[in-house]
Amino acid sequence: MGRTSGAGGVVSVSRINHIAIAVPDLETARSKYAQLLGVEPSEIETVADQLVRVCFFRVGESRIELISPLPDNKGVAAFLARRGSGLHHICLEVEDLDAALAEYRQAGIRLIDESPRLGASGKRIAFVHTAASEGVLLELEEKR
Amino acid sequence: MGRTSGAGGVVSVSRINHIAIAVPDLETARSKYAQLLGVEPSEIETVADQLVRVCFFRVGESRIELISPLPDNKGVAAFLARRGSGLHHICLEVEDLDAALAEYRQAGIRLIDESPRLGASGKRIAFVHTAASEGVLLELEEKR
Repeated sequence: MGRTSGAGGVVSVSRINHIAIAVPDLETARSKYAQLLGVEPSEIETVADQLVRVCFFRVGESRIELISPLPDNKGVAAFLARRGSGLHHICLEVEDLDAALAEYRQAGIRLIDESPRLGASGKRIAFVHTAASEGVLLELEEKR
Repeated sequence: MGRTSGAGGVVSVSRINHIAIAVPDLETARSKYAQLLGVEPSEIETVADQLVRVCFFRVGESRIELISPLPDNKGVAAFLARRGSGLHHICLEVEDLDAALAEYRQAGIRLIDESPRLGASGKRIAFVHTAASEGVLLELEEKR
């Protein structure tokens, strides 16, 4: 999408990669969303290093992800304890993650990940701090 | 997207129309998101009958909406008071809203709007109750 001289940036977001919804019971939520969306979900996957189980629904060029904590999980479990089920984060796809993070640092935008790290399926990702994005947990994923 | 006999439904969601983020100060949030997304925002619009001011950013086939309450607003103002800024709702585009709502009623899915009503710009919309969608406020909008 557009690069805006008005915004002073070189960040180029191509699409919403996914929207993640935190749920306590993945099987129940998976059935509900299959009915709500009229879309077959993916199989449930365990992302061991993030201590979560997930499944996805394709919606246009994006996906809706359901995410549920495994027993020793901290972040998602704390979110559920504090707020209950609900919208957890959004993931934006960028052309060049290094360039985006450099741009953000230059603009003084607070980051959780100062440099890219590997997410599920070996994709390069980084999280922006919620203080910089109006309380929204914002994940960036590099396009492949 | 796919109609799934597995899910038993005829609901057909074509894309994520928008993701809405509630903010207390629309001008500040608009500048932040212009920088985060590298996209020029739309002009700020007042949606008088919903007592909100909004602006949009195009991201691929979807949009990110920033939404801020006007003085007598109840819903968005209560959300901000309870949780602060953050992800407020997602809007899915469906081919046939009447068919989707009929399907939902038949499946016992709880709705806020039992029949379509007119949203901003005269579009036909309806909201699903958060109890049916894992705490997520889900708006449906009919494709035009």
